Amino acid sequence: MGEPFDAVDVIVTKRDGGRLSDAQVGWVVDAYVRGVVAEEQMAALAMAVLLVGMDAAETACWTGAMVASGRRLDFAGLSRPTVDKHSTGGVGDKTTLPLGPVVASFGVAVPQLSGRGLGHTGGTLDKLESIPGWSPSLSPDQIRAQLESVGAVVAAAGDDLAPADRRLYALRDITGTVASVPLIASSIMSKKIAEGTSALVLDVKVGTGAFLPDAATARELAQTMVRLGEGAGVRTTAVLTDMSTPLGMTVGNALEVREAVEVLAGGGPPDVVELTCVLAHEMLTLAGRPDADPAAALADGTAMDVWRAMVRAQGGDPAAPLPQATCTDDLTATESGTVASVDALCVGTAAWRLGAGRTRRDDQVQPGAGVELLVRPGDHVRSGQRLARLHTDTPDRLARAREALASAFTIARTPPSPRRLVLDRIGG
Amino acid sequence: MGEPFDAVDVIVTKRDGGRLSDAQVGWVVDAYVRGVVAEEQMAALAMAVLLVGMDAAETACWTGAMVASGRRLDFAGLSRPTVDKHSTGGVGDKTTLPLGPVVASFGVAVPQLSGRGLGHTGGTLDKLESIPGWSPSLSPDQIRAQLESVGAVVAAAGDDLAPADRRLYALRDITGTVASVPLIASSIMSKKIAEGTSALVLDVKVGTGAFLPDAATARELAQTMVRLGEGAGVRTTAVLTDMSTPLGMTVGNALEVREAVEVLAGGGPPDVVELTCVLAHEMLTLAGRPDADPAAALADGTAMDVWRAMVRAQGGDPAAPLPQATCTDDLTATESGTVASVDALCVGTAAWRLGAGRTRRDDQVQPGAGVELLVRPGDHVRSGQRLARLHTDTPDRLARAREALASAFTIARTPPSPRRLVLDRIGG
Repeated sequence: MGEPFDAVDVIVTKRDGGRLSDAQVGWVVDAYVRGVVAEEQMAALAMAVLLVGMDAAETACWTGAMVASGRRLDFAGLSRPTVDKHSTGGVGDKTTLPLGPVVASFGVAVPQLSGRGLGHTGGTLDKLESIPGWSPSLSPDQIRAQLESVGAVVAAAGDDLAPADRRLYALRDITGTVASVPLIASSIMSKKIAEGTSALVLDVKVGTGAFLPDAATARELAQTMVRLGEGAGVRTTAVLTDMSTPLGMTVGNALEVREAVEVLAGGGPPDVVELTCVLAHEMLTLAGRPDADPAAALADGTAMDVWRAMVRAQGGDPAAPLPQATCTDDLTATESGTVASVDALCVGTAAWRLGAGRTRRDDQVQPGAGVELLVRPGDHVRSGQRLARLHTDTPDRLARAREALASAFTIARTPPSPRRLVLDRIGG
Repeated sequence: MGEPFDAVDVIVTKRDGGRLSDAQVGWVVDAYVRGVVAEEQMAALAMAVLLVGMDAAETACWTGAMVASGRRLDFAGLSRPTVDKHSTGGVGDKTTLPLGPVVASFGVAVPQLSGRGLGHTGGTLDKLESIPGWSPSLSPDQIRAQLESVGAVVAAAGDDLAPADRRLYALRDITGTVASVPLIASSIMSKKIAEGTSALVLDVKVGTGAFLPDAATARELAQTMVRLGEGAGVRTTAVLTDMSTPLGMTVGNALEVREAVEVLAGGGPPDVVELTCVLAHEMLTLAGRPDADPAAALADGTAMDVWRAMVRAQGGDPAAPLPQATCTDDLTATESGTVASVDALCVGTAAWRLGAGRTRRDDQVQPGAGVELLVRPGDHVRSGQRLARLHTDTPDRLARAREALASAFTIARTPPSPRRLVLDRIGG
């Protein structure tokens, strides 16, 4: 007793199309964490929210309650301004790796706190953990010190950041209540707000390899998140970017680190370089440095210096060889023509089947596993030419991975229209 | 592993407006009982069903799966035809008590298996348990023997009848997923089909004191249940009856038994007599006795003989005095005029506050608690005249009960239009 609301009343209000008051939203999230609102009650409420919706004020309040469920870091005392990036996740997206060093090379602090990924490939932590010795486990004081000295840090988000979200996300995952814009937006933004960054750039992916395949929903998500960030005092902009084709030529943990290092060395695939520079420009603009030139930092080695300092500061050896899978296999073209498309979802599925991603939170990823693309849309190929190389430590996974990968390639008579990587920009 | 479906896929199919296959419905109900589908998953599915709906075939399949989750009784070998009644529940509705004896007096068997009620007043079992010595705990063999010898029986439904419904109902109760026509219909009908009756009359209440206040939803529920019964081989008809005013003059367990005995003695309030005769006629028609005269059985004492035999067969003493509450209090009119209405919900709430009903399944009811109405709609009253008497063993509950009861009465200048008790009839 002594609770100001009843869970069933809150559920029924939302179920019947009503809006929840600030007090109801604050209570239900807090009571869920306290165990007063049971898992099955939150599951019913999440389904009602998914089907009925939440307006901007309800979503803001829900996000605030999740932030308030844990600790909120504060980097206000740093000598550098802080800005972070969040991506909704895509196949082959390794931009987080060069991005922190590029932005930090202009005197900005980039506090990238990250969780473990579920899905096609591992998350950012899994990618960096393929570097021998590197560790994501830093205390808030260590994070602050590294932000001050190096500027870039990638660390595991502590269990005390938005614990309500951690619990709610696990529940949504098993109850078919993931695909709700207000719930996705509040989940992402509660973690980023709790992380303590002053500014945030959101990379919202659109296309087959994205979490949200359709552009309208992606745009709604981006707008909702920008509003949540601004409402919580975090300067926020979003870019909508294409995820119908994988980013770059590699999908897999160590394979992606290798490609990120190529970008930091002034080379690498043009799309990864372009997206890195676009996002870095957005971040630098929010940090008060709109004139800074990210491409120059990649070209002149200053970003690479920060990368090496960041890896070393977290125990890694930037010069050590990266792990390689024990077994490789090639996929070859069965006809001649022009590569019309390389489907991101199929490539992601292949990498996942090779061992690069996880299904459950406690699965181990294979650092060397993944897919190396050898051709891009627009390339001309001859029958028998190699299209991609598969990497894995478990050869019995090759057959099903090849199946997924083979269906990724469309060979046609005519070349595809050129790819537009950045589709739109929201906020700012 | 080894499960033919995934719970999240089933939830998402329904969530996105799809229909579930027979195999999916059968699996999800069975897997829920086996613990493979978790409570939070069923809660999300129930909310999706509530908001999206289920069609006739899905609902029939869902009902069949709940029947199949337990034992189905079979009274086919009896020398009497079987017919039961189910009411969706109303304030002061004690018709179950005279109805079994009336119908049984014509050589028909009435196997009334009942659960514990939640709500304004106790259920039928709570009412009969106010008779000293009476017990609802009978084995299937005892039920069969009493049906053969006496014809009427009221017994607690065993835990093995539709156990899926028992579990699902408890879940729906705490997750705001009660108010769904397919879920209500399948809950009621799964228990009645499992009970083994050959025919069934449904009394679906409409009005403030009913579970479903609006007539359109009540009609949809009635139609759905008739279809489910017929589809499962149970001849089924439904009547829609008014529940804007309490039935009879008493609301409370022993108070209602007293009134039921008055009806069995050939007296009692006209509305209780009318509804008893209407429902008895429906039941007797389904049992092949359309010409039998229920009013005659009440007038000539044959129904009372069966009542006494039924009470005795279950250990009760039909001549023993009924329990009385230790404390009474009167509500008087504050103005003169004609009683325009007596709101069923307000009277029910007052009786519940006095201790006649339960909030949780393990609450105790007070057998003597409740409300005795002293005037009916259409009666002329003078200021200061007694309108109702409150009964309770816990005097500290009187104030809040009086509050609810006072708001039940509307006194006006002009008399109300006459009440139509039976609003419609469906099926047959």
